[in-house]
Amino acid sequence: MLILMDGKHTERDLEAVLEKVRSLGFKPHVIPGATGVAVGITGNRGPIDRGLFDGMKGVADAIAVTRPYKLAGKDFKSGHTTVTVGGVTLGGDAFVAIAGPCAVESEEQTVRIAKKVRAAGAHWLRGGAYKPRTSPYAFQGLGKEGLRILSVARRETGLPVVTEILDQRSLEDVAEVADVLQVGARNMQNFALLKELGQLRKPVMLKRGLSATLEEWLQSAEYILAEGNPNLFLCERGVRTFSDHARNTLDLNVVPAIQEISHLPIIVDPSHATGQRRRVAPMARAAAAAGAHGIMIEVHDEPQKALCDGAQALHPDDFAQLMGELAKLCPAVGRKLAAQPPPPKKAKK
Amino acid sequence: MLILMDGKHTERDLEAVLEKVRSLGFKPHVIPGATGVAVGITGNRGPIDRGLFDGMKGVADAIAVTRPYKLAGKDFKSGHTTVTVGGVTLGGDAFVAIAGPCAVESEEQTVRIAKKVRAAGAHWLRGGAYKPRTSPYAFQGLGKEGLRILSVARRETGLPVVTEILDQRSLEDVAEVADVLQVGARNMQNFALLKELGQLRKPVMLKRGLSATLEEWLQSAEYILAEGNPNLFLCERGVRTFSDHARNTLDLNVVPAIQEISHLPIIVDPSHATGQRRRVAPMARAAAAAGAHGIMIEVHDEPQKALCDGAQALHPDDFAQLMGELAKLCPAVGRKLAAQPPPPKKAKK
Amino acid sequence: MLILMDGKHTERDLEAVLEKVRSLGFKPHVIPGATGVAVGITGNRGPIDRGLFDGMKGVADAIAVTRPYKLAGKDFKSGHTTVTVGGVTLGGDAFVAIAGPCAVESEEQTVRIAKKVRAAGAHWLRGGAYKPRTSPYAFQGLGKEGLRILSVARRETGLPVVTEILDQRSLEDVAEVADVLQVGARNMQNFALLKELGQLRKPVMLKRGLSATLEEWLQSAEYILAEGNPNLFLCERGVRTFSDHARNTLDLNVVPAIQEISHLPIIVDPSHATGQRRRVAPMARAAAAAGAHGIMIEVHDEPQKALCDGAQALHPDDFAQLMGELAKLCPAVGRKLAAQPPPPKKAKK
Amino acid sequence: MLILMDGKHTERDLEAVLEKVRSLGFKPHVIPGATGVAVGITGNRGPIDRGLFDGMKGVADAIAVTRPYKLAGKDFKSGHTTVTVGGVTLGGDAFVAIAGPCAVESEEQTVRIAKKVRAAGAHWLRGGAYKPRTSPYAFQGLGKEGLRILSVARRETGLPVVTEILDQRSLEDVAEVADVLQVGARNMQNFALLKELGQLRKPVMLKRGLSATLEEWLQSAEYILAEGNPNLFLCERGVRTFSDHARNTLDLNVVPAIQEISHLPIIVDPSHATGQRRRVAPMARAAAAAGAHGIMIEVHDEPQKALCDGAQALHPDDFAQLMGELAKLCPAVGRKLAAQPPPPKKAKK
Repeated sequence: MLILMDGKHTERDLEAVLEKVRSLGFKPHVIPGATGVAVGITGNRGPIDRGLFDGMKGVADAIAVTRPYKLAGKDFKSGHTTVTVGGVTLGGDAFVAIAGPCAVESEEQTVRIAKKVRAAGAHWLRGGAYKPRTSPYAFQGLGKEGLRILSVARRETGLPVVTEILDQRSLEDVAEVADVLQVGARNMQNFALLKELGQLRKPVMLKRGLSATLEEWLQSAEYILAEGNPNLFLCERGVRTFSDHARNTLDLNVVPAIQEISHLPIIVDPSHATGQRRRVAPMARAAAAAGAHGIMIEVHDEPQKALCDGAQALHPDDFAQLMGELAKLCPAVGRKLAAQPPPPKKAKK
Repeated sequence: MLILMDGKHTERDLEAVLEKVRSLGFKPHVIPGATGVAVGITGNRGPIDRGLFDGMKGVADAIAVTRPYKLAGKDFKSGHTTVTVGGVTLGGDAFVAIAGPCAVESEEQTVRIAKKVRAAGAHWLRGGAYKPRTSPYAFQGLGKEGLRILSVARRETGLPVVTEILDQRSLEDVAEVADVLQVGARNMQNFALLKELGQLRKPVMLKRGLSATLEEWLQSAEYILAEGNPNLFLCERGVRTFSDHARNTLDLNVVPAIQEISHLPIIVDPSHATGQRRRVAPMARAAAAAGAHGIMIEVHDEPQKALCDGAQALHPDDFAQLMGELAKLCPAVGRKLAAQPPPPKKAKK
Repeated sequence: MLILMDGKHTERDLEAVLEKVRSLGFKPHVIPGATGVAVGITGNRGPIDRGLFDGMKGVADAIAVTRPYKLAGKDFKSGHTTVTVGGVTLGGDAFVAIAGPCAVESEEQTVRIAKKVRAAGAHWLRGGAYKPRTSPYAFQGLGKEGLRILSVARRETGLPVVTEILDQRSLEDVAEVADVLQVGARNMQNFALLKELGQLRKPVMLKRGLSATLEEWLQSAEYILAEGNPNLFLCERGVRTFSDHARNTLDLNVVPAIQEISHLPIIVDPSHATGQRRRVAPMARAAAAAGAHGIMIEVHDEPQKALCDGAQALHPDDFAQLMGELAKLCPAVGRKLAAQPPPPKKAKK
Repeated sequence: MLILMDGKHTERDLEAVLEKVRSLGFKPHVIPGATGVAVGITGNRGPIDRGLFDGMKGVADAIAVTRPYKLAGKDFKSGHTTVTVGGVTLGGDAFVAIAGPCAVESEEQTVRIAKKVRAAGAHWLRGGAYKPRTSPYAFQGLGKEGLRILSVARRETGLPVVTEILDQRSLEDVAEVADVLQVGARNMQNFALLKELGQLRKPVMLKRGLSATLEEWLQSAEYILAEGNPNLFLCERGVRTFSDHARNTLDLNVVPAIQEISHLPIIVDPSHATGQRRRVAPMARAAAAAGAHGIMIEVHDEPQKALCDGAQALHPDDFAQLMGELAKLCPAVGRKLAAQPPPPKKAKK
């Protein structure tokens, strides 16, 4: 922590700051400058809350020298975190594609699409049983019935299931079925939920909030890690800005930014970020080229009948074509497509 | 709903749209233009999901003619909603000030500050027992003990208690003590929590999310109203933008914007929006001048010892001065300060 | 300047930084910390470009201790800058209202409206002869003929003229007529134009750019001040954010923010910020309550015929009512409406 | 144009709208709905200013059915615009790399770096003679001497020169030397400059403004096209948002968005968008994968001595490596690196 005194601070103001530092058990160092004075702090083991100094008379600014997260940072763990589900490892050299419908609408629809995304090369199956909807009047998902359908789709295709957990009360049900629990953008700072997911030990995918900074995102990850769950990866899905040509602004530069400071894997969801079918493939390719560990893509074979977000769903054929492009593109950035999970065991009698 | 066809649509595309409208039970109206064609829809009772048309071939855009909320809008209720707690009515001609510490730190601290804000003119007491903190390592609030302390402070001062509800599991405890349940910015789209608050019938204060549009905010209000709880008011607390001279950008223009389209009262929280003590009073006055129904202000008599957000807390003396300024300013916009709640009954033996 | 070394810097990286500081003629001070090392720099007279260190190996961050502007800051000038035009002083205790049509459309229209805003209490007349328009096909202003009309309106009403300067080639013409030269949001970083305005010595009103930070804004002011022109005031007119209920997001909190660090006066333009007639008066009152030195308001008596921005223009009657409200409101914040300029001398013979 | 009437409009309000439409020479069509009424307008040839209706009583909204640009849109020109300079064509199947130092610092430095970027595979040379700097105290470029140096570098390497035009007064000088005139982000809405560039007929690269929407950007392009200059391409260089992990937020999704609606080529500048050397290559690869027609990269062989933006400059070796990666990546998206311009004719005697 560095405290910058303003140009009009008095000796008394400075002394009060020094006293405060000492009262916290740390050691202050006065650094005189040409146009100001700064106070460096040593002796602390973790970050110091800048709010402790922000309000003091004569203080212009308080600057953190250390980062506000610990377990999520590279200083804590120098290698890479990997998350392995269904024999597929996310976070290493292999590129992983999660695909499926936005929402579970029926068993027939879900199993049908699951088979098509499997055939097109998907590694894990996505599908929402509980849907967070801006409007109380929009389709809210099939709930427990949706979970049952997802487990059928997994049995039929061998694809592990990624599905969203919306609230504490349904946590037990969702955790029983999900192979990966997805935390959506709106819940990135639902800290009570994050803590319970940290205690659960199942793999978690943490989406970035619509207006979350990189540091806030990693601190939300820290909530999960600090409870003892290391099976965690991140998902960029666009942020909210003035730019109105797409639903959100996909912040692809956050991929190398995360990789500079954290050991956590990061994937990209171009479907929600763009909201438009035609832009999904370009942004999926760009994500791979930027170094993301994977993508999550919404696929529907009858998007015009979809109960949710049909406009952004790829047709299975388009998804297959995208997987082909990615197979060619990944080697140019030192990656290759992951091998798919083994086919369902009990099949084909 | 108006469907705009793009410049290259075919007759078949147009026919598919007309057919889709009819299949939903509505009536399409083709409107030819100089450079395009639009399809108007009639016969629907409520809003139509634009996603149903967004993905169709030849469709350039789908525009909602009706608003996505109903109970929160002026069309549903032409008068003003008022919320009365402790004999003080928010939402009418009187201006209401909610004040108190950011966090409940101890019984002594909370009761002491509660008495000071009462003396300075506050109407309701604020104080957090459960605190949402970006970092898992920051002070998380006293929890149930904090709730007990708040009820003591209410007994000692006669001020009703406004306190934050963070998650479903603590809802029962918080609801037992709180006079007004505060939903924080991070929970504005925690829909499961909103539904439970809608069933509760206690007054709710719904803060705007950091990147929520006005329509998203009102749809979150709609979640509460639709469950049957009409005791609801809104609180603007700043949004997240590029502008970095303050913690957030206080969007005061949302006050008249809400009043144009909704019957719900709206107050302003300049403490969180600015994050800086010196800016709280100017923005509180601006809120009153813009027509807000009240303000929520953080007050601490030893801000340098505060466990949370000390930099933005007003001293009780400064708060008293602000209340004096507001008393002078409110009449210029046709309001007056509300009368304070009666003093505690069982006092002074 | 403080250089923060990252957690993995080598001794050699640190030595390179120290050497670089010395090569610039300054003195480095190593400050060891618990989790990092910082290097303080002394001996410099002005700000140091952080880019000089940003790229160096082992450097985590470079933090400016001093502000990037000088003449615009309070450290340079402790009193308040005032700008006096037509006997009306902006920047002191008096509140100044600039009003008039968005664009000069004809002599008849401009003189008629000028008389009405004078009657309603305006201090200075606004009106655009050169209009910056997003589309090349929109009305671009009357140009030199517009300037002539403005000088007629000034002669008829005694109100000094505030008008926009768009480019270098028309500078001489505009400067001949304008009492205050307005730099619009789009030109806030047209540095060549700013330099020429700095050499001109006529009063300048510098609007904030749509996405300008406070520091960028003051550095643009610095361009004008550094060329020797101290007759300068600022105008907040809304910034661009995700918030879509109004044309822009009025950042009123920038008013106290500027007043904390600069001696320059600041006014607010609620017409452009809101884009909607109904919101102009609430935001004008809020600006006054926040401590602004004045407002700029678009007024048109036939807004439905206006060639530009009719939707945000107040009727003269509404403007008169607003001036009445401001007369009541200003004393609550220690200000009063300025006295109007003297009437035209050569009147009515 | 579609006019949406609000829920409380009167018959008189509606009649006034119809009358207004007729007075403009167009034909109104009343479209009754379940919860409102809309008025469609036909008979107009170009876009109608929505401001003409926005302010009218009873009008809820006015929605443009047609786009606000014409020459920049695909409706006007169905093929692709290409810009050929030095035998290299931008806008077709070939991928073009523009590279060089941020600023021209000396003849020795510029020629040396130009030779290195040529050797590494660059197609065109970038370098600023006139630099737009936020601070008046920062290095402003060598001016005319810088232009002379650029022409020397072109002679020595055969690389065409891309350099920035800052203001009208230096236009003639810059146009004499530049092969491509670059309009920077800050000047995207310097309409007077755009008009003069439109009259010039030399190739222009128009960067996106920091807070420009896609429609504003294309309207700025329209200013140039409407004056008769079709030699135009666009450059995305990041926009300003809350996201603070990089200097700006690179909006790569704008690449397919532009390609959907415009025939103009679009390249990406990852150097300015990220501001950090380590992120330049990932974002350059992502740009190629997203379908951009080229990139512009800052290269410096002694970034720690650079007078401007050294932190974002790639070393020539890193740039060569990036070109190698792009050579592998481009075929995966149906492109290939362009052939370099022929070597200088007058070489080595």
